[in-house]
Amino acid sequence: MIDSDIIDKLRVTPGKQVKLKEWATGWAFADEVEKAGKAAVKARASEILNQSLEHLASAQQVLYADNRYALLVVLQAMDAAGKDGTIKHVMSGVNPQGCEVHSFKKPSTEELEHNFLWRYSRCLPERGRIGIFNRSYYEEVLVVRVHPELLANQVCATEKPKKKQWEHRFEDINAFEHHLSRNGTKIVKFFLHLSKGEQKKRFLERLDRPEKNWKFSSSDLAERAHWNDYTEAFEDAITETSTKWAPWHIIPADDKWATRALVADILATTIDSLDLRYPKLSETEQAALASAREQLENEK
Amino acid sequence: MIDSDIIDKLRVTPGKQVKLKEWATGWAFADEVEKAGKAAVKARASEILNQSLEHLASAQQVLYADNRYALLVVLQAMDAAGKDGTIKHVMSGVNPQGCEVHSFKKPSTEELEHNFLWRYSRCLPERGRIGIFNRSYYEEVLVVRVHPELLANQVCATEKPKKKQWEHRFEDINAFEHHLSRNGTKIVKFFLHLSKGEQKKRFLERLDRPEKNWKFSSSDLAERAHWNDYTEAFEDAITETSTKWAPWHIIPADDKWATRALVADILATTIDSLDLRYPKLSETEQAALASAREQLENEK
Repeated sequence: MIDSDIIDKLRVTPGKQVKLKEWATGWAFADEVEKAGKAAVKARASEILNQSLEHLASAQQVLYADNRYALLVVLQAMDAAGKDGTIKHVMSGVNPQGCEVHSFKKPSTEELEHNFLWRYSRCLPERGRIGIFNRSYYEEVLVVRVHPELLANQVCATEKPKKKQWEHRFEDINAFEHHLSRNGTKIVKFFLHLSKGEQKKRFLERLDRPEKNWKFSSSDLAERAHWNDYTEAFEDAITETSTKWAPWHIIPADDKWATRALVADILATTIDSLDLRYPKLSETEQAALASAREQLENEK
Repeated sequence: MIDSDIIDKLRVTPGKQVKLKEWATGWAFADEVEKAGKAAVKARASEILNQSLEHLASAQQVLYADNRYALLVVLQAMDAAGKDGTIKHVMSGVNPQGCEVHSFKKPSTEELEHNFLWRYSRCLPERGRIGIFNRSYYEEVLVVRVHPELLANQVCATEKPKKKQWEHRFEDINAFEHHLSRNGTKIVKFFLHLSKGEQKKRFLERLDRPEKNWKFSSSDLAERAHWNDYTEAFEDAITETSTKWAPWHIIPADDKWATRALVADILATTIDSLDLRYPKLSETEQAALASAREQLENEK
């Protein structure tokens, strides 16, 4: 497991003003790298990832059997920060019967005609399950904020772009998450923190390698031009919605091995922190099992 | 239209402590009855109902065309208070394409395995529509409060019946309604206020008249035995969730003609209070219409 000090450093304290340039995009624990060398740290991360995957797979089984909690994982990031790869590598050991991924793309007309939380609310995981939101209701204070023209499709007369627009949305999101957390949904939020230089490198890779071409869209460059606006929107969103009941983690994303090990470890320890247990049978239920066994053994 | 003073008297002021015995269950404006006689008042109510129905039908058309607001109508009451009859008589003039009624009965397993607002949230009306909740998320602080054993099916480990249980639910409901109202859903809540004596009369009628037998269930009597508990639960819920953005109205329900006239009138005036309009076409759109007309007229 990763040192809990390291994890604590990645978790945003409620009330703390987030400035992303103060947060590392690469493996932040330079001491360790200096002492052991990068190759050793990377090998250690890979080991941690493997341990966490096993850990996560068994934790998810208890979550499912216990059936009192759900886990909602929110993943947000700039393009090419590794959301899809993280989901693939971290979640592939988990039984898909207890895990569902929702990717939120362009909203449908029906979705636009409801309150902005509606489309996300429908996809919430039920008890016993892990739900992963690959992008989420946070887009409503990110892409919609950077492109306020999107509000026109979505917002009725009572919610014109106005001074308190985003403040109200943060308030609504916090209340929504509070409600979920009180009703047994544990929420963990990750911002995969990528540097602008690493994004350029990954985009060029998508252009260079034919099997990665499909991941590139010309709109990616247009969005990259809004880098600073997105940074501000993320800073505000993370600052305003880091709560005790739904903490944000700012995960260095320039090194994929680090991202994956950290996310896997945080998920596994989060599930562990719940008081999960396999259901215990009552005496009557145990007697029923005994009688079932007898019946089976006496079968002719 | 009913005098707006009368309507104001039925609306609960936010922060006001509600004691139901202080609220009339019969037509409350004794002056009027004394002056004009009950038959005249009843005739007047029927006239108002008819006017309101026309009013409502046309208001709903603009709501639909305008497509910026939704109307959510919440109906709560003791059994036999006339929820179904009110919906039938008040809404039957409205185009069903723009109006939907949701009755919430016993929750499914899937519903029980989500946060308590989830099943209601899925049924919210989209913009341009009227959504009627015949019973609603308020059952979560009414029937569930009177029968706390229901919590066991529903609530995960984090929400054991505890001191702040209902306070938290009121808080969640207020935040949910605030979110909806900020996103263009106008919310109007009605408590149909029936006296215990009138309920007895209506139950006996259901037992006496074969064509009404189906409406009676033996559980109705069991619930009647909890009359005082329900009264307290209603008083608390109405007190705690009367807000500027989602007001409660306490509607006298002993006289069906009064209930219906009042509900219809409040709905019609609520829609009227929104700044609705038929969409105006831009010059380009009007030019497109002109060209369409030309094309049709020149068709061979």
